[in-house]
Amino acid sequence: MKNYIKPDEWNIIEEGFDPHLNKISESIFSIGNGRMGQRANFEEAYSGETLQGNYVAGIYYPDKTRVGWWKNGYPEYFAKVLNATNWVGIDIRIGDETLDLNNCKVTAFKRVLNMKEGYLTRSFIAENKNGKAVKVIAKRFCSIIDDEVGALHYQLVPLNFENIVLSVTSFIDGDVKNEDSNYDEKFWNEVSKEQDKNTDYLLLKTKKTDFDVCTSARSTILINNESVSLSPVMSEKYLGQTVKVNVKQGDVIDVYKIVSNLTSENHEKQVLIERSKQVIDQASAKGFEQLLKEHSDAWAVKWQESDIVIAGDVAAQQAIRFNIFQLNQTYTGKDARLNIGPKGFTGEKYGGSTYWDTEAYCIPFYLSTAPQEVAKNLLVYRYKHLQKAIENASKLGFKDGAALYPMVTMNGEECHNEWEITFEEIHRNGAIAFAIFNYVRYTGDESYLSEYGLEVLIGIARFWKQRVNWSTEKNKYVMLGVTGPNEYENNVNNNWYTNTLAAWCLKYTVEVAEIVKEKYPEQYQNVILNANLNAELEFADWTKIVTNMYYPYDENTGVFLQQDGFMDKEQILVKDLAAEERPLNQKWSWDRILRSGFIKQADVLQGMYFFEDDYELETLRKNFDFYESRTVHESSLSPCVHSILAAKLNDEQRAYEFYLRTARLDLDDYNNDTEDGLHITSMAGTWMSIVEGFAGMRVRNNQLKFSPFLPKQWDSFSFTIGFRGVQLKIKITIRQIIITNNSGQTLEVLIFNELYSIPKGEKVISYNGTVV
Amino acid sequence: MKNYIKPDEWNIIEEGFDPHLNKISESIFSIGNGRMGQRANFEEAYSGETLQGNYVAGIYYPDKTRVGWWKNGYPEYFAKVLNATNWVGIDIRIGDETLDLNNCKVTAFKRVLNMKEGYLTRSFIAENKNGKAVKVIAKRFCSIIDDEVGALHYQLVPLNFENIVLSVTSFIDGDVKNEDSNYDEKFWNEVSKEQDKNTDYLLLKTKKTDFDVCTSARSTILINNESVSLSPVMSEKYLGQTVKVNVKQGDVIDVYKIVSNLTSENHEKQVLIERSKQVIDQASAKGFEQLLKEHSDAWAVKWQESDIVIAGDVAAQQAIRFNIFQLNQTYTGKDARLNIGPKGFTGEKYGGSTYWDTEAYCIPFYLSTAPQEVAKNLLVYRYKHLQKAIENASKLGFKDGAALYPMVTMNGEECHNEWEITFEEIHRNGAIAFAIFNYVRYTGDESYLSEYGLEVLIGIARFWKQRVNWSTEKNKYVMLGVTGPNEYENNVNNNWYTNTLAAWCLKYTVEVAEIVKEKYPEQYQNVILNANLNAELEFADWTKIVTNMYYPYDENTGVFLQQDGFMDKEQILVKDLAAEERPLNQKWSWDRILRSGFIKQADVLQGMYFFEDDYELETLRKNFDFYESRTVHESSLSPCVHSILAAKLNDEQRAYEFYLRTARLDLDDYNNDTEDGLHITSMAGTWMSIVEGFAGMRVRNNQLKFSPFLPKQWDSFSFTIGFRGVQLKIKITIRQIIITNNSGQTLEVLIFNELYSIPKGEKVISYNGTVV
Repeated sequence: MKNYIKPDEWNIIEEGFDPHLNKISESIFSIGNGRMGQRANFEEAYSGETLQGNYVAGIYYPDKTRVGWWKNGYPEYFAKVLNATNWVGIDIRIGDETLDLNNCKVTAFKRVLNMKEGYLTRSFIAENKNGKAVKVIAKRFCSIIDDEVGALHYQLVPLNFENIVLSVTSFIDGDVKNEDSNYDEKFWNEVSKEQDKNTDYLLLKTKKTDFDVCTSARSTILINNESVSLSPVMSEKYLGQTVKVNVKQGDVIDVYKIVSNLTSENHEKQVLIERSKQVIDQASAKGFEQLLKEHSDAWAVKWQESDIVIAGDVAAQQAIRFNIFQLNQTYTGKDARLNIGPKGFTGEKYGGSTYWDTEAYCIPFYLSTAPQEVAKNLLVYRYKHLQKAIENASKLGFKDGAALYPMVTMNGEECHNEWEITFEEIHRNGAIAFAIFNYVRYTGDESYLSEYGLEVLIGIARFWKQRVNWSTEKNKYVMLGVTGPNEYENNVNNNWYTNTLAAWCLKYTVEVAEIVKEKYPEQYQNVILNANLNAELEFADWTKIVTNMYYPYDENTGVFLQQDGFMDKEQILVKDLAAEERPLNQKWSWDRILRSGFIKQADVLQGMYFFEDDYELETLRKNFDFYESRTVHESSLSPCVHSILAAKLNDEQRAYEFYLRTARLDLDDYNNDTEDGLHITSMAGTWMSIVEGFAGMRVRNNQLKFSPFLPKQWDSFSFTIGFRGVQLKIKITIRQIIITNNSGQTLEVLIFNELYSIPKGEKVISYNGTVV
Repeated sequence: MKNYIKPDEWNIIEEGFDPHLNKISESIFSIGNGRMGQRANFEEAYSGETLQGNYVAGIYYPDKTRVGWWKNGYPEYFAKVLNATNWVGIDIRIGDETLDLNNCKVTAFKRVLNMKEGYLTRSFIAENKNGKAVKVIAKRFCSIIDDEVGALHYQLVPLNFENIVLSVTSFIDGDVKNEDSNYDEKFWNEVSKEQDKNTDYLLLKTKKTDFDVCTSARSTILINNESVSLSPVMSEKYLGQTVKVNVKQGDVIDVYKIVSNLTSENHEKQVLIERSKQVIDQASAKGFEQLLKEHSDAWAVKWQESDIVIAGDVAAQQAIRFNIFQLNQTYTGKDARLNIGPKGFTGEKYGGSTYWDTEAYCIPFYLSTAPQEVAKNLLVYRYKHLQKAIENASKLGFKDGAALYPMVTMNGEECHNEWEITFEEIHRNGAIAFAIFNYVRYTGDESYLSEYGLEVLIGIARFWKQRVNWSTEKNKYVMLGVTGPNEYENNVNNNWYTNTLAAWCLKYTVEVAEIVKEKYPEQYQNVILNANLNAELEFADWTKIVTNMYYPYDENTGVFLQQDGFMDKEQILVKDLAAEERPLNQKWSWDRILRSGFIKQADVLQGMYFFEDDYELETLRKNFDFYESRTVHESSLSPCVHSILAAKLNDEQRAYEFYLRTARLDLDDYNNDTEDGLHITSMAGTWMSIVEGFAGMRVRNNQLKFSPFLPKQWDSFSFTIGFRGVQLKIKITIRQIIITNNSGQTLEVLIFNELYSIPKGEKVISYNGTVV
């Protein structure tokens, strides 16, 4: 746990340079635009600890699998987020000395991530070993308007020397590698490079996958506002523009760099350089300031749609904005081939881009804060991978169109390789179905079901059908050998969450089929044809499973059992665990964790969160008390669900405590792992804690519902959501809920189970039900 | 399955050269002497498929662990059997052409492993692309008398050319690597090399472990029986002696090579070369023929002690001798630091040298066929590793002297890295205790308990004590998260075999403590001190667990359940499995195997084999019928136990069928994996099938017992065993058991539950009980 980020409502601020924090700050100060992004690596050389990271969405490398012992069914490759060409590089030499903060006395160091306008600045004074000091101010961003474009401005002023040759080289460098390369291999080959009009064009190709990426940079250097002429330099996978000048104290050297990243995913390979020239020309015509202005204006719109305002708690305000900012930097929803990597554009760890996090945690955020298309594209992503999911299942011995979506994927192929996860953590299939349900529940867009959803649901239902087996012993359908979201149990039988989700999927698929059959009869026939569905027979099979599914339950405590045999474990509680034993995943051996009753994230509660209307409040309370006391929350995805459920149980204090656990997870480096990158997907969980937890927002029967409370640490909080064409601002104070409807359309909204009509304008409703 | 080895009672014979079989033959024709050994690689160059393998016992390399996902508690290194200096190499050049069977027309090729005398011969005629033909006869062995010495004789005759320069280089080459190197690394560094009197001395050091090994070779080359002078050649890690001669048709070129391998495990590092010179001088003084004679004489003694003679079935005779021969080549019991690698000196696969195979399968063979010291040294090996086993357990969170022996080891440290095996396949601990029991039962040597055994048992007992937990649900002690010998189930609860073995260990430890306390009171005090044992308290704890252990049992079928929840599985049987689905481990994904009820090796039956006196025959029959019908025998260790139990159940036909499954496992390449090396440890299982199965041999109450039958495919079989100073030859015919006592001491022996006195000489007893 660190505490070095300065509190501020709109900015993330680091003051003073601590090399030990550098990798953490590189993650926190990352910038991105959904199409590309990068860690906050320094422009100038740095020989200290750093994780270099520039990423281009959708560009991956299938790294040969590394396992201790091969198991049949493992994928041969692990598709990895690729570290790509570094485009921020600026080499500064003062005389013979390279400017490198690791070898300088650094003062007045300040890094600021301006979240409101979406850019990163850094300023410092560095004095090298020869006593030569310079002052630097650097500013950069990845444009969310022109999302193939990035730009930076780097200003340097000599403070105490003259008659020394200063050499400045603005470069792009593709000779990079992934820190997590399995066999220490480099993943890029050079295709070609060009230099023209102070501009460098570097065309690289990934090995195996043959993605072409052209990174280009136009460099402009001014000395005291006068442009100087630059000399091109090049070496393997490296291009730059350089100048040597005799400088004197107080001279102002400005470097501007307009950059583009174009990929063969969006352009024909043979025109990549040509198109890059056009993009660079257009962006350069706008210039740095204009690009930044358009970018900032676009951020203003994003904030209008998605901001949460917390009054009376700057740290909380900063944290929630940071989470929203990073989510919006990671995924913009323009491209259904992209998804939300667990580290976004802030690190390479965990490879892949898509986990069940997307469906279970991110979808609600994008549903409420972005145009409907954005969440829809996340669903269409899975639709596009249906055939791969069917292939994936067939590799494991399933048949007849059963689909198992991968645990981790880039292109629809599985790339995880632990049998207990890859083969057994199959609840991901259920989350994908639930996301379809959630999307339709929120948007009312049933046409999605006929066009995409039903086919996916049929594949998933068929998987569950084949994955259960009839137990003559129990006289029920059972599901053996699974791993639930609680990954501190592996290969268990009858994981309550997975059984529950599976039965729900089967039931929902039949329901959806009825809807599509009735409302979209023509498309229904297409789906039947495409999926080769024997509706009568298969629906009957599925319904039989729904009716006869086994759910482990403990008579004594009245709780649903996480899995068969859970009560055989020693029933000790988290409160009895010494502080020095935690986190278990660092302090205990794996087998000890597995044998203990401690829970990484409580999957029974996850299930009760998904299907809350199916359970009495008293049942929820029993299960919550039982599981919360055993849960160590060592998944960043865990506390948000507990927060929402605690809020539902009117336990406001605990709802707030759970919220705190993830809100500043990365800003305060809670788990000592922010240096690897940010926990992008769990950021959506923080948003959920506020909106679904504190504000108690739900969608039921095509209506929004709120059951809010105000955490006593805050003066008020408000958030903006879009719902079926209406944009609402909801403000929660200690006694009132103030709803501002910004659209012309009147909306019916439930507040604490009472229905209110919300026309355009502001409406103030007291918690006691009176309209103020 | 192959069928190319010619049947012969004493020899393994391959006729004709098939490059596709070469790697298999390299394994089958391996030679070794317990201290070193090698695959049957060719002396001359070979560019075809080959796995080069020379191995020196006890010399290993800790290869950096390669896993997909790290789990707390994994060992950092996997200690690997090391491919060492190739000492058989002889390079032959005919003019400009290297002799390489891969580029020749090969006729009259014959490889013979003479098991009676313990040497390998190979002969062939090879015609190269230029039409030049030579005839070669090669012979070699690793001396079991001078076990640091190997020798070879390579004779070459030009058949159809003259006036061509023949160049012969006899070399040793340490520039080798392991095929299974995790990161494609070489494991040896050169320390020094010397050449003197036609002799090459190559001193290499292993990286990390710093083992020094000096490989030396004295080469003598004769042309038509006249010695020629040789020129030394050298390069990195390579030394040789070479000669070029103008040969004519019919000239006889003889190469003799006397070789030694000395290691820093047995000599001071600084005198390794000097000592090698002495060894080489002494061996050379004897010369090839004398070395071979002494070696063959020693083999005659080994055969006297361990031979099994089968009349009326050459294939069976060849197979059982092959198994006995390889077991005796692998382990001679002279050195308690050595053990029995799963591949012996025949391949590098599986790394490590010690698995539970040693205790569960190999001990009975060595107990009966070798001096008592041999089996004892296998036990002492584990005693020496007790501290490491305690450290290993403490890494996993156990304490107070609890010991967990590694799943795979060289030096006592764990080197396996699959959590479900490394952390969970803990039954190995029980097998180590059982081996102590078995040794004492067989030898009557209770002093072993006081000197070594009790301390080991205490460590093991403490582990089980901490590994179980009290289930309030079941009101019993349970053991969660284990993998039994049936590795087609992972991470199960209450594996019947492991629970049974654990409770037995606790009970046996208390019993042994009582024996030692009574008979060796002084040593008992030492043990108490060493182990810091609180006898009263700890024994009471252990006994409580013994009394209250939970054993899963199925009321309906009356069988012990392999584990909790086994009856939830679909109960389909092996007979219902289509042939093309097998072997499952090649045809099915891992998760499908795990979820199925199919069993790799039946661990309930393994437990009933160990503790057979605890169960009624009817109980055994029920369990046998239940588990055998579900067992696919995809472990080479499986069929022997089924064979022994079938024999006990008087199912002679099936006893024989199970025997057949392992008897020729490697000779016929049953599992398509002999090319990696031989299944050394399962060979002991074949021996057990005959001696414990067909002959029904047991030790009960300090007496030998036999309940024999003769497989109807055989005319008779006989075997030799040593028992408490007496050597017996037992011959089983269709109606009689003929016992020859070769010692002066009279022995009481049970035959079908009747007691017979066996004085020196031969005694013939009919199955009906009459003495003939």
